[in-house]
Amino acid sequence: MSLVIIGTVAFDTIETPFGKTDKILGGAGTFASLAASYLCDQIKLVSVIGEDFGSRNLAVIEDRGIDVSGVQIVPGGQTFSWSGRYHNDMNSRDTLATDLNVLADFDPIIPDSYQDCEYLLLGNLTPQVQLTTLARLKRKPKLVVLDTMNYWMNVALDDLKKVLQKVDVLTINDAEARQLSGEYSLVKAAKVILAMGPKYLIIKKGEHGALLFGENQIFSAPALPLADVFDPTGAGDSFAGGFIGYLAKVKSINFTNMKNALIFGSALASFCVEKFGTDRLVGLTEEDIQKRLNAFVALSQFNL
Amino acid sequence: MSLVIIGTVAFDTIETPFGKTDKILGGAGTFASLAASYLCDQIKLVSVIGEDFGSRNLAVIEDRGIDVSGVQIVPGGQTFSWSGRYHNDMNSRDTLATDLNVLADFDPIIPDSYQDCEYLLLGNLTPQVQLTTLARLKRKPKLVVLDTMNYWMNVALDDLKKVLQKVDVLTINDAEARQLSGEYSLVKAAKVILAMGPKYLIIKKGEHGALLFGENQIFSAPALPLADVFDPTGAGDSFAGGFIGYLAKVKSINFTNMKNALIFGSALASFCVEKFGTDRLVGLTEEDIQKRLNAFVALSQFNL
Repeated sequence: MSLVIIGTVAFDTIETPFGKTDKILGGAGTFASLAASYLCDQIKLVSVIGEDFGSRNLAVIEDRGIDVSGVQIVPGGQTFSWSGRYHNDMNSRDTLATDLNVLADFDPIIPDSYQDCEYLLLGNLTPQVQLTTLARLKRKPKLVVLDTMNYWMNVALDDLKKVLQKVDVLTINDAEARQLSGEYSLVKAAKVILAMGPKYLIIKKGEHGALLFGENQIFSAPALPLADVFDPTGAGDSFAGGFIGYLAKVKSINFTNMKNALIFGSALASFCVEKFGTDRLVGLTEEDIQKRLNAFVALSQFNL
Repeated sequence: MSLVIIGTVAFDTIETPFGKTDKILGGAGTFASLAASYLCDQIKLVSVIGEDFGSRNLAVIEDRGIDVSGVQIVPGGQTFSWSGRYHNDMNSRDTLATDLNVLADFDPIIPDSYQDCEYLLLGNLTPQVQLTTLARLKRKPKLVVLDTMNYWMNVALDDLKKVLQKVDVLTINDAEARQLSGEYSLVKAAKVILAMGPKYLIIKKGEHGALLFGENQIFSAPALPLADVFDPTGAGDSFAGGFIGYLAKVKSINFTNMKNALIFGSALASFCVEKFGTDRLVGLTEEDIQKRLNAFVALSQFNL
């Protein structure tokens, strides 16, 4: 009865118009599990780090009650690290450096204690690692959510298509949906992609919100308009974590719950971008989250 | 007790990936008044056409119960005409020709029978013509909605700022909001623009919907995801017409009604793009509109 999240735990070095960081805690697995931790219990992380990672960084994750026994520490290894600079519009960025380090040989080991997995988030990693993870789970999870990106469409499309046949939900952005489907219209793109395997497709549109396709229905979730986006790093991962965290809490998969899950995911993502790295995603209160959900209701609900 | 709409009545020649038209009926005043005609009575149009316009085209407008006694016919004059080609993504277009013709010397004459105007839509025209229209109304309307575009920000910013001081609602797109305010964040842009005069600001984002700012609140209206956008010409004008048409019907200006007006405007715009020119905006039934409104509810409403 657990939510297993596999994804990177990393060092990020970030430059935005608001400032510059040293190497700080980042990674898709980190953001997703922190976000989910506000919505459900029994979160179990699978990842890999180097000996340089430091116990203080790992404590940030553990302090939120997240099980890190599936986070391998490679002796003498260096942690995956990424460095990037955001442009003034905060919608585009340049990657300055990507050092795979221990991630290059990542073999996802699933501890026995993780075999109770009912909800699985396959964070953005090589499709091969995602396939291995699925193969190593002895029981098929109730729900598998897959995150991926254009890079894997370019270099590992065949493997990616194999993963797509085994998952329930795919989350990608609008450009990636167009690339994967070869269709410009997102409605047509969704049709093509849903035929590849997943029952639900979430298309993330950044400041324009997200669309959910499935069960012959469409739902449009707004993004919260913000005066300042401080650091967008991890927003998509926080969204995915909030999304699956909500479903793991309510334990029932249908379009109505999926819609709410999109709103919870969007709320968590809206916190993430308010500070550098994971700073805003630690120490949120129940009241913070309730207020933010209320803001989404006010933003998008009407009564004709 | 009428809704006065001032805007172009024109000939459009349109090329899209779906086909090509001859000179067909178009113009902001046409689209806006047709859209509004499904929501309220007593619509009165101010515009100018040439002798070439033809009674059949005018009949399309009159047949919807729209008063055209304020549409001047210039003897021997040629009607304003525009020609454009949409790119494959339908989000961008090239203007192939703009022939102002009778629009070049347009002096907006307001018939006495229009002086009962309570709702006024100032369609996209020179700010000077918009100012003249306002000056010629003997009684201040209950609500003035202004549409404009980047072109007037480039060539007539001072006049535009004068109009802004006299209107209640401004509708522009996101790029125009950024240009007018000098702010990238739409939240900051809205703050700057609302300080220029209007009490409400609507930022249109095309396939991403629209944002309404005012009364220290924000509302996000979705756009209906469509498999095929056949011809986007007139979508923004249909939106504006549906928006003010709804408010003229309910006769009460507050944020709650403004939210609904955005949804009605979006619904009318979603019809407009389904066929060339005004083809889809004539002959809609009450049932068509109710079904479309239901689609907007299904698309965006949730229950946490």
